[in-house]
Amino acid sequence: MTSEPTAALPPLPPLSPTPRSTVGRMRERAALDREALYRVLDAGLVCHLGLVVDGAPVVLPTLYGRDGDAVYLHGSTGARALRLAATGVPVCLTVTHVDGIVYARSAFHHSMNYRSAVVHGVARAITGDEALHGLGVITDHVAPGSWQHARRPTPKELAATAVLVLPLAEASVKVRAEGPHDDQDDVTAGLAWAGVLPLVQHWGTPEPATDLSPGTPVPDHVRTRRPTSPPSA
Amino acid sequence: MTSEPTAALPPLPPLSPTPRSTVGRMRERAALDREALYRVLDAGLVCHLGLVVDGAPVVLPTLYGRDGDAVYLHGSTGARALRLAATGVPVCLTVTHVDGIVYARSAFHHSMNYRSAVVHGVARAITGDEALHGLGVITDHVAPGSWQHARRPTPKELAATAVLVLPLAEASVKVRAEGPHDDQDDVTAGLAWAGVLPLVQHWGTPEPATDLSPGTPVPDHVRTRRPTSPPSA
Repeated sequence: MTSEPTAALPPLPPLSPTPRSTVGRMRERAALDREALYRVLDAGLVCHLGLVVDGAPVVLPTLYGRDGDAVYLHGSTGARALRLAATGVPVCLTVTHVDGIVYARSAFHHSMNYRSAVVHGVARAITGDEALHGLGVITDHVAPGSWQHARRPTPKELAATAVLVLPLAEASVKVRAEGPHDDQDDVTAGLAWAGVLPLVQHWGTPEPATDLSPGTPVPDHVRTRRPTSPPSA
Repeated sequence: MTSEPTAALPPLPPLSPTPRSTVGRMRERAALDREALYRVLDAGLVCHLGLVVDGAPVVLPTLYGRDGDAVYLHGSTGARALRLAATGVPVCLTVTHVDGIVYARSAFHHSMNYRSAVVHGVARAITGDEALHGLGVITDHVAPGSWQHARRPTPKELAATAVLVLPLAEASVKVRAEGPHDDQDDVTAGLAWAGVLPLVQHWGTPEPATDLSPGTPVPDHVRTRRPTSPPSA
């Protein structure tokens, strides 16, 4: 992750004016438009949620979903981190996709192709219909089609679930999607191979639950689930 | 990510006695042995590094490498987060693998199969031979074989690189690797499909750099790179 430039996405309304979310190093790698932020968030499955607990950082993998400029999070009401996040403390939500490893002639210029989004803000606990909407957004993000297909939450299940919303007000996006940037001397010397080894994700064969009636067909929303979107999407 | 049990890995010497790294919810999902921690870290490509900056959490994707009970991190000496991490402040380093989506009969019991490691500690800046060793560990983690194949860092490159070491003293590991845990009423009703849709990662076809001499063969360490290890590894 050295400091080569990359193709920045076309700027639209700026996301964030604060120093914290202004990309310091590698400014040229920042994509400042909201559509780029949406693409990175929508292509992810898990986010890494950061909180300050007793003065120290805690980073936890968490499921999420986006609707417009709102990111929804959920968890058990017994989960300490979620309880804390609901109290109006600052949080940081980061989503990263690794798209490939960049092999350079020098160890120094080895790098990674990736897309990442970092969102700063304060989450708010939501209840009732707003929480139900948030759970629908999260469910259809994690498992598109499942909100329609599966049984909806009961009041008891809702009561056991903490649902939070985080506004997309302050955020930054970084994308690296290109080959190595070697020193010219190393290119001329020609001693090492250089290029990109792409990392590809795809869905495997659905595995029925052990308690599913034999012969139950795999529904379309599972069978034809599309891969998470590629860097060019 | 609801609270079903999972197969815990066999316990070996405990990793962490502090409340912070003791898994509160889903204790049964925690794997407490050091080998499990190594496996999760070694199978990852990027970690999410958490820091407290001006009282708020910041979570950044970062390359890393492990050697024994040391995790090495690096970055430009100009990167604010790395500079801060080197000052002896607490950090949290999290690595997560998403292995599949768990479809349940109810939205409530939808979940994710995953492996994650959360490491708490204080990083220390290293220099000289220790930094060079750390860079070799990181390089061979990100691109196995490249430390031997590519040109090693020059003194100038070393001076431009911040290298940190984080001891694996306090950490927790969580693994979920199983099907849905539905309510019996929902199983009996049999209205929805349930099971796991595995998420698979593999390496694509190597893409030579545009400035590579035509016909340069792809070396074995790139061509035969093995996928990141599966949950069962």
